[in-house]
Amino acid sequence: MKALWLEDQKLSVRDVPVPVPAAGEALIRVRLSGICGTDLELVRGYYPFTGVIGHEFVGDVVESPDPSWVGARVVGEINAACHFCEQCAAGRPTHCEMRTVLGIVGRDGAHAEYLTLPVENLHRVPDSVSDEAAVFTEPIAAAAEILTQVTIEPRDRVLLVGAGRLGQLTAQVLASTGAYLRVVARHEHQRELLHARGIETIDAADVEPRRWDVAVEATGSTSGFDVAAKALRPRGTLVLKSTYRGDITLALAPFVVDEITIIGSRCGPFEAALGYLEMGAVDPLPLIAARYPLSKAVEAMRVAGQPGTMKVLLEP
Amino acid sequence: MKALWLEDQKLSVRDVPVPVPAAGEALIRVRLSGICGTDLELVRGYYPFTGVIGHEFVGDVVESPDPSWVGARVVGEINAACHFCEQCAAGRPTHCEMRTVLGIVGRDGAHAEYLTLPVENLHRVPDSVSDEAAVFTEPIAAAAEILTQVTIEPRDRVLLVGAGRLGQLTAQVLASTGAYLRVVARHEHQRELLHARGIETIDAADVEPRRWDVAVEATGSTSGFDVAAKALRPRGTLVLKSTYRGDITLALAPFVVDEITIIGSRCGPFEAALGYLEMGAVDPLPLIAARYPLSKAVEAMRVAGQPGTMKVLLEP
Repeated sequence: MKALWLEDQKLSVRDVPVPVPAAGEALIRVRLSGICGTDLELVRGYYPFTGVIGHEFVGDVVESPDPSWVGARVVGEINAACHFCEQCAAGRPTHCEMRTVLGIVGRDGAHAEYLTLPVENLHRVPDSVSDEAAVFTEPIAAAAEILTQVTIEPRDRVLLVGAGRLGQLTAQVLASTGAYLRVVARHEHQRELLHARGIETIDAADVEPRRWDVAVEATGSTSGFDVAAKALRPRGTLVLKSTYRGDITLALAPFVVDEITIIGSRCGPFEAALGYLEMGAVDPLPLIAARYPLSKAVEAMRVAGQPGTMKVLLEP
Repeated sequence: MKALWLEDQKLSVRDVPVPVPAAGEALIRVRLSGICGTDLELVRGYYPFTGVIGHEFVGDVVESPDPSWVGARVVGEINAACHFCEQCAAGRPTHCEMRTVLGIVGRDGAHAEYLTLPVENLHRVPDSVSDEAAVFTEPIAAAAEILTQVTIEPRDRVLLVGAGRLGQLTAQVLASTGAYLRVVARHEHQRELLHARGIETIDAADVEPRRWDVAVEATGSTSGFDVAAKALRPRGTLVLKSTYRGDITLALAPFVVDEITIIGSRCGPFEAALGYLEMGAVDPLPLIAARYPLSKAVEAMRVAGQPGTMKVLLEP
């Protein structure tokens, strides 16, 4: 089968064997996959990964130990857990110490014709949700993870810093809470997408310092971190919702004096994400910037890496 | 009156006027005051403060707008709030935007014969609690703040990094939860004090990585931060319980991947602290390293600043 292969931080589309499902795993034919910021970071060496990248997908089950899944249109959680380690025993399977992660750690990914995942990772896609929407389930779930970590109420003032791929979805999820939400977006195109959803933006320079209950950092940059941190009121919460390369230098004293809470936020609940899509609370379709055949995946990655580019999809 | 004066990062014992209570404030004659790490940091320029330093004290009310307080032996919360700002209105008076802080921000402090504080900041000391114990109420309250921020259960594994002045009290407060507690203590003297309370210590090199539910950083150093951070399991909580000078450089990616929560922790509940003292759950007396007359406060500060020195008290 055809797949987008990463090796020594170099990409190529090549022919590789169709993956063989392990015990408890399904074989899935990919309909669409989405290019994520983490894919781009992997090429830059964020993790030392060799193999097929990609972890956002929608596809059809073609083989399954439980035959009721065969033929189902599915999305899949990307962390495959061992069920035996201390983290799994403690009910944190997404933090399994021996986990593989689709297209990121020890498991070939979704920018391919086929992939394998444990059946328990799969979620059926409701008929009313198109392939183009369903392929966003994983990043919407990552955005929804914030709401499992922080209670956000309508009276809260929430600042989102960053309006890229994940930022746009995060904005829509945060808007669904009814909170007072403002988004710092660098590019005009990002602002237009937000305004089209009725979400208001704010210039970084206009963010009142020490007034916001929750700030979500979705830029992955030191400057974004600073904007978010300075915005927070005492005892406010700073959510880190991005992939961070390298080191950041900061003064800890203000976080202690103001008793700030900083929370790292990663993978989230797929059922909630599919619910947002089914209800229309999140509409990812305007975020699709381009669609490429898998054979042109290297070019698609180049386009996805240009600043301000929204979601680029791949079709096997 | 005599007082320990800080100006241009230089200390001197000098004669200053007895402070005049503002509306709603009491005048308190100091029985004992305690030298805290923050006092030492102020001398190093942590905050630009000129005036009488010191914020840990026990004393007697000599003037009060509510006469029922006159003659009472008291301790006092150190943040004097305005009651009008957004933080006060939101129920966070210790974070009042216009607050003065005893001996730290805009208000002369406790290393003096007299001090003033709002009556509402005062707490009567139970008869069974000695002056020497009561003078520790403020730092015990700061340690108890952790338990208002993080739920610690007997089944939790809690690592405390740092066993200095505040670390020792924090260890005793954390031990009261019944959790599995280990303390990283640099000095033999610190370890002996902990062992005498039945609290177990651990070498930093022996701390199992990624196994602890809660890690409390009480060293104020980058190396202490690293020990605490590496100890935490995924979704663990890192409490910052120290005064931090300067910047720290760290990689944020692991905090996101492991969904770690970092919480800054400052002033805490005085009633709880007095409760610990009354019940004997916290015994600060073995922490008293030396006692000086206020006239020798500069020498006392020098001794308090030597590594490993526990609490130094001043007597006006």
